Order: sequence, then structure tokens, then C-alpha cells
Amino acid sequence: MAGSSFGNIFKITTWGESHGKGIGVVLDGCPAGLPLSEEDIQIYLDRRKPGASRYATQRKESDAVEILSGVFCGKTTGTPISMVVFNQDQKSKDYGDIASHYRPGHADYTFDAKYGFRDYRGGGRSSGRETIGRVASGAIAAKLLKQLGISCTAYTTSIGPVRIRSFDAKEICKNPLCMPDAAAAGEAGQYLESCMKNQDSAGGVIECRIDGIPAGIGDPVFEKLDANLAKAILSIGAVKGFEIGDGFAAALSKGSENNDEFCIKKTGTIGKTTNHSGGVLGGISDGSSIVFRAAVKPTPSISSVQKTVSQSKEETEISIHGRHDPVIVPRAVVVVEAMAALVVTDALLINMTARLESIRQFYRTDVSQS
Amino acid sequence: MAGSSFGNIFKITTWGESHGKGIGVVLDGCPAGLPLSEEDIQIYLDRRKPGASRYATQRKESDAVEILSGVFCGKTTGTPISMVVFNQDQKSKDYGDIASHYRPGHADYTFDAKYGFRDYRGGGRSSGRETIGRVASGAIAAKLLKQLGISCTAYTTSIGPVRIRSFDAKEICKNPLCMPDAAAAGEAGQYLESCMKNQDSAGGVIECRIDGIPAGIGDPVFEKLDANLAKAILSIGAVKGFEIGDGFAAALSKGSENNDEFCIKKTGTIGKTTNHSGGVLGGISDGSSIVFRAAVKPTPSISSVQKTVSQSKEETEISIHGRHDPVIVPRAVVVVEAMAALVVTDALLINMTARLESIRQFYRTDVSQS
Amino acid sequence: MAGSSFGNIFKITTWGESHGKGIGVVLDGCPAGLPLSEEDIQIYLDRRKPGASRYATQRKESDAVEILSGVFCGKTTGTPISMVVFNQDQKSKDYGDIASHYRPGHADYTFDAKYGFRDYRGGGRSSGRETIGRVASGAIAAKLLKQLGISCTAYTTSIGPVRIRSFDAKEICKNPLCMPDAAAAGEAGQYLESCMKNQDSAGGVIECRIDGIPAGIGDPVFEKLDANLAKAILSIGAVKGFEIGDGFAAALSKGSENNDEFCIKKTGTIGKTTNHSGGVLGGISDGSSIVFRAAVKPTPSISSVQKTVSQSKEETEISIHGRHDPVIVPRAVVVVEAMAALVVTDALLINMTARLESIRQFYRTDVSQS
Amino acid sequence: MAGSSFGNIFKITTWGESHGKGIGVVLDGCPAGLPLSEEDIQIYLDRRKPGASRYATQRKESDAVEILSGVFCGKTTGTPISMVVFNQDQKSKDYGDIASHYRPGHADYTFDAKYGFRDYRGGGRSSGRETIGRVASGAIAAKLLKQLGISCTAYTTSIGPVRIRSFDAKEICKNPLCMPDAAAAGEAGQYLESCMKNQDSAGGVIECRIDGIPAGIGDPVFEKLDANLAKAILSIGAVKGFEIGDGFAAALSKGSENNDEFCIKKTGTIGKTTNHSGGVLGGISDGSSIVFRAAVKPTPSISSVQKTVSQSKEETEISIHGRHDPVIVPRAVVVVEAMAALVVTDALLINMTARLESIRQFYRTDVSQS
Repeated sequence: MAGSSFGNIFKITTWGESHGKGIGVVLDGCPAGLPLSEEDIQIYLDRRKPGASRYATQRKESDAVEILSGVFCGKTTGTPISMVVFNQDQKSKDYGDIASHYRPGHADYTFDAKYGFRDYRGGGRSSGRETIGRVASGAIAAKLLKQLGISCTAYTTSIGPVRIRSFDAKEICKNPLCMPDAAAAGEAGQYLESCMKNQDSAGGVIECRIDGIPAGIGDPVFEKLDANLAKAILSIGAVKGFEIGDGFAAALSKGSENNDEFCIKKTGTIGKTTNHSGGVLGGISDGSSIVFRAAVKPTPSISSVQKTVSQSKEETEISIHGRHDPVIVPRAVVVVEAMAALVVTDALLINMTARLESIRQFYRTDVSQS
Repeated sequence: MAGSSFGNIFKITTWGESHGKGIGVVLDGCPAGLPLSEEDIQIYLDRRKPGASRYATQRKESDAVEILSGVFCGKTTGTPISMVVFNQDQKSKDYGDIASHYRPGHADYTFDAKYGFRDYRGGGRSSGRETIGRVASGAIAAKLLKQLGISCTAYTTSIGPVRIRSFDAKEICKNPLCMPDAAAAGEAGQYLESCMKNQDSAGGVIECRIDGIPAGIGDPVFEKLDANLAKAILSIGAVKGFEIGDGFAAALSKGSENNDEFCIKKTGTIGKTTNHSGGVLGGISDGSSIVFRAAVKPTPSISSVQKTVSQSKEETEISIHGRHDPVIVPRAVVVVEAMAALVVTDALLINMTARLESIRQFYRTDVSQS
Repeated sequence: MAGSSFGNIFKITTWGESHGKGIGVVLDGCPAGLPLSEEDIQIYLDRRKPGASRYATQRKESDAVEILSGVFCGKTTGTPISMVVFNQDQKSKDYGDIASHYRPGHADYTFDAKYGFRDYRGGGRSSGRETIGRVASGAIAAKLLKQLGISCTAYTTSIGPVRIRSFDAKEICKNPLCMPDAAAAGEAGQYLESCMKNQDSAGGVIECRIDGIPAGIGDPVFEKLDANLAKAILSIGAVKGFEIGDGFAAALSKGSENNDEFCIKKTGTIGKTTNHSGGVLGGISDGSSIVFRAAVKPTPSISSVQKTVSQSKEETEISIHGRHDPVIVPRAVVVVEAMAALVVTDALLINMTARLESIRQFYRTDVSQS
Repeated sequence: MAGSSFGNIFKITTWGESHGKGIGVVLDGCPAGLPLSEEDIQIYLDRRKPGASRYATQRKESDAVEILSGVFCGKTTGTPISMVVFNQDQKSKDYGDIASHYRPGHADYTFDAKYGFRDYRGGGRSSGRETIGRVASGAIAAKLLKQLGISCTAYTTSIGPVRIRSFDAKEICKNPLCMPDAAAAGEAGQYLESCMKNQDSAGGVIECRIDGIPAGIGDPVFEKLDANLAKAILSIGAVKGFEIGDGFAAALSKGSENNDEFCIKKTGTIGKTTNHSGGVLGGISDGSSIVFRAAVKPTPSISSVQKTVSQSKEETEISIHGRHDPVIVPRAVVVVEAMAALVVTDALLINMTARLESIRQFYRTDVSQS
């Protein structure tokens, strides 16, 4: 089905394969009047670019984005914003085994089971390069959120068994693993070296924090803010788990521990003394920061020999050559951030219609009725 | 927004408040020709009914479902199936504190922040009774899946710190906690007794297993099968986490451990020697059983005194009287199962259009063209 | 598929069959805070009620609506509003021919071709009674629009060959044919008498006028305001044509005649000197009244003998007994009005997110952020 | 809002402005396995290309389409098909009046009213070039339909007052006006010459015929096949009316005339002796050819002087220079055909899930389960 779209009002549709002509996205529903340049988007794309460190593939792609529509005189026009990154590294080569053998942990077999055949070049549509469209549109969402005083920040909290023990936001951009703890980042680096030496790979956990979101965003029942975040995050390849607030730890705790007591803040507004909820109650933001985590599996591409089967249903072995990231986590950090920004932006726009009084006020005073 | 609908082809829309006239659901897109009676649905509703054990509220509701449309001569007609459970226990009473005080861990404050006011009677729309519509429609999905040889089974794997140590499917229905391990169920019962004695509550984990699903179901990118399961599960009140296959444990493992090797099964078809993936690769079912887990927080309604604020922004205290489930988990088991059935049914219907050859075959041989 | 829903933000889902237990609708996405009673809705339903005149079926139904959810203390809560009209006239009777013979001009055959069988009692899901859900929810949309100074008014402009020659809004409710011209209504009545005498039926045209809508509502490309009105109107059974503004007559005119010149109105705002466009340019409202028309076919149920075939594929004849409206038009007038109100309400809510500046202003000053 | 998408399963999202970098479309949900080349699409695009005759603008664009994704080894892969036509004729020029004055009959004013500003170059998003995305994706739909034995054919039935009096399908492609009547085409040509001489323009009517569609396609209530066709056709700029079958003439006829009697065809299947319905009963195809018409208004761009207002709210005059088509109709013919193909394809895919028996058969015998 048409499964490449995400969002209701602020909606993206992505397209493209790893080794096709390019990767792109159409963002439809972006409000008019947002200042926007290719640089705004490139900054985000550069954060997921390969070749940035020894823990990422050495594929040399500039991944330069082009805006093809929807921006005029430096501002969004309200019409669809089409963006594309043309693939450079698409020289014809021998894909050999990958064309006919199913790589364990990859989507090769399931694509064939569904569609009968697949574009096997570099993983085709199931490649990590698919996330370029998410990040490019997430950059625009983030810029819009900034105008409303809202920010999304993702970072690595663990690589394999190495967890962060302190939090310093300034550290996130300083180490190639996006960890807010320099010491942990060092240890994690050593852990990855040992994985690489053993022709193996590692997983990890990404946390994301959304600050500045007002209370009342999200909808009851099926369009809960956390339900949409969960879908957004699980839709990222390699993510196997999602939790908000205390998450799985909440299952171990007691009501008296897990409930957040309400209080009146110094500003006179309602707040909470703790944030076990992760900023969402009944699917609606409660005014605290939203905090959630994503579990990322180890890179499935490893060079050690693995048993598998071929398209022609024969048992065989495969060894995946070429350089592959020993860990997906650091490059997925900006993808998590982008998806969070997309979900929150959509929820904010939808929320504008929740109350009759707001609607009446809007149509009485709207700038468009001048 | 219109957030009370779920699904694409097989779509439900739920409505109703805890203490309003009733709770209902409209299931639209159910194929014609499925034998269906109210009994088929009642069996599922009875599994979530209050008053079933001492670990559930004693509210006396028969929760008898009525089918109002979409069934003729004992079979579904292809038109919307409207189902309703009229509320019996809606006598006017004094809601006192609950009307004006925000209960910690509940959606009282967030509903007010969003809508300006709320139906506070019994939690209104954010009550657990909202799940009646999910379960009633999930029962129909489960019946349809059975015709295709697919089953969904959910059960409790932990209550607070007590985890199952063995798995016997026959035990699930035998104990009030829906645990597949009689010994663990006994220990969990003792744990709940101590929580109740301390005016406190417990959380837990639910696991769900989907057997018989063919490979190829689900879509790449945003409509991944696991992404839709994550949204479905997080949309259940009190769920704070979701993981598929190894989930958060995968983040700790290595590629060589987490990858499932493919093999040729005795039947000659492609299979896997392990199931760390939980039955989904690249968002598409891989032919193994789908296995996922949901983290459920402790019941927020506890009778011990908690600090909170009032609607008029004054700090105060609240003690929630009346009988409340000390744990939500066992009553949520059938809700998880229902949501899983809804997601899988929708994905199966959508998948029918994935290949031109299937479509051509359909229109050449379809029973409707007789 | 799930084809019983309409709208994006302000969304309805209808259900029910002519002779089933009832007919209903769930309206999801209605803003909170709208004063609403069953009387508000009953007024609209009474306008489409059978038995109101000798040109309508004598089925005695009170068609009393019940609101089952979504309203608390006399105001909408923002959660789904479920409404139902229980069927009274559902006594078991002999449907004889209708069960096995395909009535010309009806959906009997097409339902069987699609679903394999059908609820043939009174037309089942394809009965005119299906419109009860549209009218009930349209009444709420109309009430919301009134708060914004917008009104929708539909009326009959022709019955068979008899067209109105003058327009007096006060006449619309005074004659059973809803014509704004008393003389034409008299002639149309005589025309219908002659149709009835000949066991025949008549068609006609309904016009609808939407006043007070600001410029800027509707979206470019596929969600054009007139495109959504066209879909809404063609989705009403028996409607075979839609035109906006000059419609088919525009195809005959010249650019110099059809273009509406812009002017500055006495109020200082931009207006048009004519309204050939019917109030929509490029799919977006232009500030003039929206004016469109619907062509309604003659009632297909006629008592004269017609050739047809049976379910078992034998050629045969059918004569449809019982009393049937000799014309559908007057009862469809309120349905057209309801659908127009639904489309416009949805478009107004969606439009709130068109500009960044409006969104910023909303979140700076919104009543919800007090 | 995100209004640039159309369709449910077979879904398109278009983007681009007249004088931006390009115009494109993403088709998501196209089944895998359809042979597809750029030539298949170019043939359709060439039919709408400007400069083809003296009745069309002389803008020299090759409008060469590029497929950027979704096709591998000459076949669709089931993933999004991204197509683009890069604009050649986008040299910077003086737009003078057009930037600041509102052209009568155009969307200039309504875009400004909605978004606060607009891309005024060549009409921006509301230009006729927007239809390139519709035609490119419609070409793929048409190719898929051909595999199922279904064809869509559109043609001109009138230009201004000149109507066709005979029908010869072979004539459609032979004259620049796409009329199936050579004599009428000659007269229409003369009529257009006189319009051009008077600095004026003409409208007309397009008819479309869908052959080979089986009975049972389309859904009751809101997703009626004719309702979706109406939306599709009214979403084309300049279309002001839609009618199916007898359309507005049905409003003048009687039930005995308008009802189509059913019969048994020589093939033994059920048919109709007439086709007043236009191939749809109750929103579902009845096995006859589907026949509908679209009313197209005269080109609003005319070079004679018109009164209008400026962005700064001053009354003024405008004379639109440059060469403009004196009639939109012939270039819209292929757009109507494309939209029809998109609607029918989507309905066919959706229809596959209407019956349990079909679904069971599918999963028992599906090619994907080999």
C-alpha cells in the first residue's frame, strides 16, 4: 500500500533507493511564511552523513540537498516542498551474493516474499539512506518548532553494555557517538573497536527530549502523542523498542512511586514535581518535557560468515564484505530527532481545532482576514 | 482532531464515556460473508469485564454487547458493524474531589488543558471502559484471522517484580492474572495483596504472540508492521513501552548474536533458526511468529493520600476512594490481543494489492465475477 | 473498504440499514464547547422525515435522535458524538420479489455483485434512510458555522420541467417542495400529481448557497473546496450531477463573460462585481457566496411494470408496490445542506494551519494557555 | 493542509510550480511487477504538451519525464515511483502587473487571502502545469488497467456552442481539439478563431468513457465510485461541473425513462438494455461502461482590458499579455482521462477486500506464497 507517507496536516512522503537516481521527500502541509534555505536542511543531513567517523561507512557522498518547490523569496509558500539528494555513488558493480542470497537481519527475504523481487543494490528501499527524506523534512519541522519555543534533542545513552553516567548537553556534538558523557563515549569507542576486530557489531539506546511543548497537545484514544511517537520511532529501520518516561521500569514500580504529583510552579502555572510519565498523560502532553527512548539493534551487516539461504531455496553461507558501520546508533540519533519533530509539529497543528472558543477567536482576529 | 479511528481498510471508530449512556464502536471495512453473532464478541468482552476477580473493580456491569448493523442472516454484509454496550452503572452520584482536583497519573489535567473542561464522571473518555470498543472489534478481527489460520495470544509475563519462569498456554485462562505459569501467578497474587494492604498498586508486562502469519505482511518505511503494532499498543491507556523480538535486550547484544540465520524448513519453505527479530524484518513479517511486549504502569488510582492541585490552581491533597484494580495488567491482556488482531487483519487486507500478478489472478478468478 | 467516513478534522462515520435496529453516526473531531442538545439535531431530521407531505412515503417514523456520547453539561466535550435513531418500522414482512429480483435504478444488483449477498429489507444500506446520519451531523456543523457567521441554505430550483422564476427565501419552508417560488411550487405539485397518476416519478435540481464564508478557505490541487463539495454531493444517492457557479453554462460562455471582475467594496475589502465562479477560484473561497447545484434523478421505485432479472439470472418483470415518494428532491434538500455544512466546517478547521504567523499568534494568545 | 495527495491504496502526491525548478509526482502503492519505462509516461505527457497547435500556448517545453525511483530492471518494485519534469522555460523576467494585480478568473487573490503571499511566476502552484504530475501517474494507472482489460477514453464533446453530432473514435487524435467528429472540429476551430480575434476565449465539455470495468467496483455511502470521480474531475483547475450518465438531463426525465432495465446478455451474464445510469448504481459499477462529462470554463487569461484590484487594494485595470490558449479543453482531455484512470485503479485495488471468500482464496493460492 501507499506506506511512504507520515503525518496528517504536516505530511511527508518519501521515495528513493540506495543506489537509484536519488532519495527524496515531499513535505505537504507546511504553513506559509517560514524562512527556509537549503542550508537549514543541510545542517541536519550532515549529521547523518556517512564518512564522518571511523564508526561509519566510508561511502563518499556529499548528500547535498536541493529544494525543488514550495519556497519563494526565501519563505515557504504553503504548497508542497519537494527535496532531493541525488545519489553520486551509484556506479554499476557486481552485487553477486547480495542479489541472490538473503542477508540475515536484513529485509532481503521479506521484500522478496512481499513483492516477488527487489532492488537489491545497496539494500534498495530498505537501506538506511531512506532516512534522508525523514531528516530533511524533520529539519523543517524543527525550524518551525523553534518559532514556537520548542526543541527536540536526541543523544546516545548506551552503546552495547556502556551506558552514560552523567549528562552534559555540550558533549553530544563533540564525540562521534553523540553521547552526553565524554567518559562513556571513550569506553564505548573501545567497545566498538573490539567488535570490529571480531568482525561483529553493536546496538544501543537513543534518548530524545522535547522541551517547551505546552500542555494539551496530542489526542485521546488512537492518536495519543506517545502512540504516534512510538509508530514514528519503530518505523525507523533497526529500532526494536520504544519507551516513554519510566517505560519498562514503570512495570516494576508501584503507583505511589510512578504517579507524578501536581504542583503550582513559581510562574503560577500547573506543573509536576517529578516526570515519571515522560511528559504525556492519557496521550496528551502534560507540560513537562517529553522524554522517550529507542532501542537500536546491532548492525546486521557483519563480515563474519553466517548461514543463510538463497533465492532459489538452497542453504548456503554469506560473508558481507565492504565497510559497514559497526553500530547504527550515532547516525540514527538525528533520525530520531527528526521523527520526533515531525510528530510534535503535526500534533500542534491538529490541536488548533480542539476548542470552539479558539476557533472563534482565530476567525475574528486572524491575520489572514486583514 | 478525529482521533478515535484506527486502521485503513479494516477500520474502527470508537465512542463513549465511562458514565455516559454507553460505549460503542463502528467497524467499517469488514469483508462480507463472515459468520458473526453477539456471542462471538461477548466471549472477548467477558475477558475484560470488571468484577471477575478480587484484583479487579467490583463494578457490576454485564457489559452485554448489541450488534446494531452490518450483519444479516448471521453473516457480515460488508457494511459498517455498529456495536454498543449500554452503561448500567451510571447513577448520579457525588464526584466531589474528582470533578475539581487533578488525580496524579490520570488524564484529568491534560483533558482540561486541551478542551477547557471534561466529563469527569468515572474518567469520562479516558476511562478504561473506552477499551470495550477495541475488544469488541478485535473479537471480529480474531474470528476473521482464524479463517486464515492466524491466531493472536496475549498473556502476562510479569507483575511488579514477579516474572514467569515457565510457559504453559493452558494456564493462561486458569488464573486471574493471565499468567502462563501457575507458580508465578501465585507469587504475583501475594505481591498484589501486599500492594493493596499498603493502599498501593502494581504494574507489569504483557506479551503477545501471533502465530500463522505468512511472510510478506506489512509495508516498508512508515507502515511497518511493527510500527503499527507499536502505535496500537501505546494507544492503550497505561502502556508506557513496546518492544518486538529481543527489543531493548537487542541493544545490548552483538550482530552475530542478534541476526537470525535463514534455513530451509522440512516443508521446503524458508525459515529461521532463531527469532530474535520477533517475526518482522524491515517492517514486513518474516514467516516466524510475531512476538512483542507491552509495559503497563501501575494503576494510578490509589487510596493513599497524594499531593495535587485543583482546577482553580490551588495546591491540595487527594485520596481516591472506591475500589480500584490494584493492577491493570490482567484486564489489559485481552485489549492487547484485540489491538494485535486489528493491526494484523488490516495489514493482511492491504497486502493483497502488493503484486500485479496477484491482482490479475484475482480479477480473472474472483468469486465475485461468477 | 471503510467507505462510511467523511471529512478530515471534522469527521463522520455513518452506519445502519433501513430495516435494521437503527441508523446512526459518530461525529469525531467536533471542537469542545459547542452548546448542543438533541433538539438542535431533531429540527434538521424532521426536515427529511417521511410522511410530511403527500409527495413523501407514509412510513410513520418519529425518527427521534438520541445523543449517546460526547456532550456533557449541555456542551460538546471534544470527544466523539455518537447519535442514533432507532428504527421503529422494522416489522418482519414478506419482501418477496425484492429479495430475489433486481429493481431497475436501484443498487440491488451492484451490492450483490460486490458482496455476494445483501440486506434487501427496504434497500438495506443503500436506502435513503442512510442519510439520517449525514443530516444529524450536518445539524451540528451548521450550529458551529452559525457561531462563525456562516449559513448554508438549500432549496429546490426545479421539479421535472418546472423551474423557479423568482426567489423568495421565506417561501422555501412554506411549500412541501422547498421551492423559493410559490407559483412554481404549485405547478410542480400538479406535475407530480400527473406522474403519480401514471405510476411514474420525477427528478429535479437542488441549489445550495453558503453565505458568510471568508476568502481563503479550501486548498489547492486535490482538496479544492469545490472538489470536496462535488464528492459530498455525488455521494448522496440519486444525485447524478454537480455544478458550481455557472457550471455547465460556463462551458458555453466566453472568458470576457465568465470572468468576475474584482472591486473594492464599500467596507474597504476586496470583492467581485459578479459571481460566475460560484464563490471559488482555484479551489479556494473568494469571499463571494458559494453557490452550487445538484441534479437528482427520478425516484427509481415506480409501480408500473418493468423488465428485470432475478438473482438466479432469469429474465422477469417487477412492479414495486407500497407507497414511494414520487420525487426525491424535497427530502434531499436538507441532505444537500447538511453535506455542504460538513465540507465547509472541515475546510475552516483545516485552514487554521495555513500560515506560520497565525500559528504563532494562536500559541501566544490561545485561550487554552491561560 | 496536505492537499496535494489523491487516492487511498494507489496514491499520488504532486508538487511543483509553473516557473520553479520542476514539476513532479510521487506515486505510492503501485503494485510490483508492472513493466514500466519513461516512454510509457512520455506518450501521455506529450498529449498535454503546450505548443502542439495554434490553440495552445507556444511555450517551448519538451516536458521530458524522468523516473527517479521505484522501477528496477524495467518493472515497478512496489515502492514509490518518483517522477519529475524539470522546467526549462524559467528564465527570470518581469512579471510586472501579475505580481501585484489580481487577474480575474484566476487564483491569485485566493492564494494571497489564504497564505499571505504567493509564487506569482506563471501562476505558481495554480498553473495548468500542475497537471503534469496527474498525467504522469495516470499513464501508469492506465497501463495497469490495460492489464485488466479496462480502458479510459476522454474526448471533447463541445467547444463553446459547437457540439459533436457524430462519434468516430479514430477522429479524436486527428484534430487538435480532440473531437470525435471532424466536421464539428472544423466548426469549433472557426469559433476559436473568432474568439482569438476578439481577444476572448472559449469553454467546452469533455466526456470520458471507461470500458471493461467489472460490476461491483466502488463503495457505498461516501466512497461511491461516481463521488470519487466527481472529486477527481472538479479538482482539475477550470472544471465547473460534473455529471454521470444522463446527469442534469436525468433531473428532467421520469423514472420510467431513466431506469435501466436489466437483461441477460448473450454471454449469460447480467446486463442492462440502456445506460442512463452511466455505469454506476448506488455508487458501485453496474457492469456497463462508465460515462461522465466535465464542464470546462473559458480560459480566464484574455488580452482584452479587465477591471480588477491590486494587492494594495486599489481599483485598477489589467490586460494579460503573452500568448495564452484560447481554450483549455483540448489540453485538459488527457488530464480527465488520467484522473479517471487513477480513481478506477484505486477502486479496483480496494475492492479486492470486499468478500471473505475472496480473501481466503487469495491467501490459499496467492503467488506470493509459493
